[in-house]
Amino acid sequence: MTTTPAQAPQSTVALTTDVGEGFGQWVIADDATLLDTVSGANVACGFHAGDPDIMRRTCEHAARNGVSIGAQVSYRDLAGFGRRYLAVPGDTLTNDLLYQIGALEAFAKAAGTTVSYVRAHGALYNVAATNAEHAAAIVEATRLWDPSLPVLAQEGTQTWKLAGEAGIRAIAEAFVDRAYTSDGLLLSRAEPGALLGDGDEAARRAVRMVTEGTLPAVDGSTIPVTARALLVHSDTPGAVAMAHKTRDALIAAGISIVPVSELRE
Amino acid sequence: MTTTPAQAPQSTVALTTDVGEGFGQWVIADDATLLDTVSGANVACGFHAGDPDIMRRTCEHAARNGVSIGAQVSYRDLAGFGRRYLAVPGDTLTNDLLYQIGALEAFAKAAGTTVSYVRAHGALYNVAATNAEHAAAIVEATRLWDPSLPVLAQEGTQTWKLAGEAGIRAIAEAFVDRAYTSDGLLLSRAEPGALLGDGDEAARRAVRMVTEGTLPAVDGSTIPVTARALLVHSDTPGAVAMAHKTRDALIAAGISIVPVSELRE
Amino acid sequence: MTTTPAQAPQSTVALTTDVGEGFGQWVIADDATLLDTVSGANVACGFHAGDPDIMRRTCEHAARNGVSIGAQVSYRDLAGFGRRYLAVPGDTLTNDLLYQIGALEAFAKAAGTTVSYVRAHGALYNVAATNAEHAAAIVEATRLWDPSLPVLAQEGTQTWKLAGEAGIRAIAEAFVDRAYTSDGLLLSRAEPGALLGDGDEAARRAVRMVTEGTLPAVDGSTIPVTARALLVHSDTPGAVAMAHKTRDALIAAGISIVPVSELRE
Amino acid sequence: MTTTPAQAPQSTVALTTDVGEGFGQWVIADDATLLDTVSGANVACGFHAGDPDIMRRTCEHAARNGVSIGAQVSYRDLAGFGRRYLAVPGDTLTNDLLYQIGALEAFAKAAGTTVSYVRAHGALYNVAATNAEHAAAIVEATRLWDPSLPVLAQEGTQTWKLAGEAGIRAIAEAFVDRAYTSDGLLLSRAEPGALLGDGDEAARRAVRMVTEGTLPAVDGSTIPVTARALLVHSDTPGAVAMAHKTRDALIAAGISIVPVSELRE
Repeated sequence: MTTTPAQAPQSTVALTTDVGEGFGQWVIADDATLLDTVSGANVACGFHAGDPDIMRRTCEHAARNGVSIGAQVSYRDLAGFGRRYLAVPGDTLTNDLLYQIGALEAFAKAAGTTVSYVRAHGALYNVAATNAEHAAAIVEATRLWDPSLPVLAQEGTQTWKLAGEAGIRAIAEAFVDRAYTSDGLLLSRAEPGALLGDGDEAARRAVRMVTEGTLPAVDGSTIPVTARALLVHSDTPGAVAMAHKTRDALIAAGISIVPVSELRE
Repeated sequence: MTTTPAQAPQSTVALTTDVGEGFGQWVIADDATLLDTVSGANVACGFHAGDPDIMRRTCEHAARNGVSIGAQVSYRDLAGFGRRYLAVPGDTLTNDLLYQIGALEAFAKAAGTTVSYVRAHGALYNVAATNAEHAAAIVEATRLWDPSLPVLAQEGTQTWKLAGEAGIRAIAEAFVDRAYTSDGLLLSRAEPGALLGDGDEAARRAVRMVTEGTLPAVDGSTIPVTARALLVHSDTPGAVAMAHKTRDALIAAGISIVPVSELRE
Repeated sequence: MTTTPAQAPQSTVALTTDVGEGFGQWVIADDATLLDTVSGANVACGFHAGDPDIMRRTCEHAARNGVSIGAQVSYRDLAGFGRRYLAVPGDTLTNDLLYQIGALEAFAKAAGTTVSYVRAHGALYNVAATNAEHAAAIVEATRLWDPSLPVLAQEGTQTWKLAGEAGIRAIAEAFVDRAYTSDGLLLSRAEPGALLGDGDEAARRAVRMVTEGTLPAVDGSTIPVTARALLVHSDTPGAVAMAHKTRDALIAAGISIVPVSELRE
Repeated sequence: MTTTPAQAPQSTVALTTDVGEGFGQWVIADDATLLDTVSGANVACGFHAGDPDIMRRTCEHAARNGVSIGAQVSYRDLAGFGRRYLAVPGDTLTNDLLYQIGALEAFAKAAGTTVSYVRAHGALYNVAATNAEHAAAIVEATRLWDPSLPVLAQEGTQTWKLAGEAGIRAIAEAFVDRAYTSDGLLLSRAEPGALLGDGDEAARRAVRMVTEGTLPAVDGSTIPVTARALLVHSDTPGAVAMAHKTRDALIAAGISIVPVSELRE
């Protein structure tokens, strides 16, 4: 299962980040600067972060910049920022996610564009990598909303597999700012070195993932990584600089950074 | 400004009710029976009531029955069921309402249909009758979502007027289960007799509103009432019986009860 | 570790039920009748159910009736009624529970009484039976509030054990309306027969648990059950009748039903 | 009604600030530094801001520093940070506030201290200045919790008056960082110059309020201001520097800064 045809080197990639992750009076990231750098905006939809005012502003900003809008859907967990597993039944989770996608579409539409992809946030992203019930909910919510909409997921995860089985396009996602284990999984945030801090190193890794499809794991081994969309977390310290350096390095390497909506397999 | 042409008697009306007003473990009304009786479902969108599971079920039921789905939008006030005025700025209110409409559309779409109209709930409905900022938010949220979508409102209210000015169609709504003052306003729920309890009387009043365009006010005077859509509150005691009797009386009087989406001016 | 001295038959028991489990406009159980029947009120504290108005009324009613007030603490999960496991860190859970206990105390105090015990609700109750981190949070929140306050828990659970180790009194709780496995655990609600429907049978079982300290498990075997506090869930169909029959049967068997605050080891 | 005896110059004052105003992942102010400077911590209780983890940390920090803990109670409005009027009935508001006070007490108690005063936040503070129903709710919630607890309020407001009538001690509060009208009211935040930015000027005004009981209003006139507790908003730009300068200037003027709990009339 490869998304990168062997005959031609990959020449495009999307660069995304999490945005709109404030709530009410509270804000976190320097969204404005990030939205001038990335080509995909993973917009919080109100369940872990994001309120309607923020969603409106974020969608307008993304639309102005030609940045694709993705629904960053989450467990219902504002107090925990969606970082805590919630044992919600699959049917309810499907509906929770569908609700979020529809809500975001209203702001994308008001900004003259549309939601271009779905991506799970935080604990849901991690849990759905191995939990078929929750992975299926992500896929089913996407399918109910629009079967032509792609889902961003790591290659090989349950989300990836179930999307494929349901006829939903999965776009292979890789992380610019995170260390990987030799199994190709993300090193837990609790481990030292899990979060990369050096923007130059991150940028080099990004280029390598796109051009070679490999990455050095924490144990020094080389692992295959498919990266059609690269993510820089907006709450990583130095996220803005890292996103800039990654962007510049990709362009310097001859890679086009395209909106998620323009990724072609 | 009249929506009832003088030359021909009104022969159609929509009959709506509030549905999906539970949350999580909690339910209120006998939605299933009401959805077999009405032609418009004012569906709670999660801000005063309604969770994604309930919204999904309600939209599916309405779609099966050919009942139009309306977005029953509200102040953000789950604890107060949307019955308390909230001094939210107009811009924020617009976004709060837009969020709700989009969220509901996801479930209407999953049920194979679409949101056909917008209607304000509770305190927002009452406040917007005279508060131009909040009325404008209802109209603007509707316009941002779909300028061809109608708003249900009492004739003569701020919501009604601002909809007209913005080029949004307003459908004149009247209440089957409420007493009116001689000014054509609803008698406050705090007043004795504000809520009609007799289903037969309510049904007679409904027929009169549609066929004659008048109603006796609490002081005995006759007032004009335009009623293209009739509302029976689902939490009125005896709501199911009242809705049934109203339906039967309208049909017996030769009035067709049509989905809100099929109302023509 | 037994709380029932072998030399003398147990002559007192508390009978509790879950109350105050509405929210805003929504109510569930016939609390008023239940509060005339039980001797302990497990009062929802706002995280899975219960709002300040309901907490006020419930505490006043319990105080008037001489019914002990217990803090029915929960995961933060209003949409799921606290019935879904939430992977919240132990420290945060401790603080979430402490918040709920303090909030309830305000209403107990306003009613001229005090919170007499702590009891976990729903998923937290079940999870903490085997999850030491969450069990420890229940115990620690209780200890931080008042080390002399008892916790209601099934004998042998993690909650029970960790309470003992922390010097917090655990009161052995048994269920009037639930079937038990041969291991002495509750049969999952998903299994047929998990919920007893026959009030007379439930009452007989209650008497047997108190007088003999045993119960027939679902497989017909006899299991030991320590029951210093008996629970009838308020949302069990026929809960009011079952509570009444249990009360009458206990009294007829010479057992005194005492407030939880008056239980002595 | 004066709290400053004419015969002796006021020699003590409390200096308070709003703290704990984050939620979940989100934080706002540099609470740690402020809690090293003030003598009263107005702690958010979860309705406009503040979650149990933040409340725990904030109370522990305040207790370590000998800073009095006050319950900064609010309308139920997390999305609006309690800055929006909510037309909640007085009885419900009383219970909402009582809930918050009790919840905070749990953390004060865990930190070895207690809630020493009550203060309304944001819109509730402003509304209650003239709205007797909401002012009465603040007073009644305080009285129900502990009739010996003082309320912080501007002299002459409804909150001030109703506290007096109910036998609740009101402590006269004045604002270090806000301009006053010639009526002794706060200049609306919407007006230019409403928020003082110059820490030195603010400090001079603070000293004058305490030593002379007067202040120049925006129109240049001199108005009487009673200031037993001085507030520096933590979200005022430069709040930390302003608090420091105010503290230093007061001490230099021979005024003792004492915890709110040690203020004597």
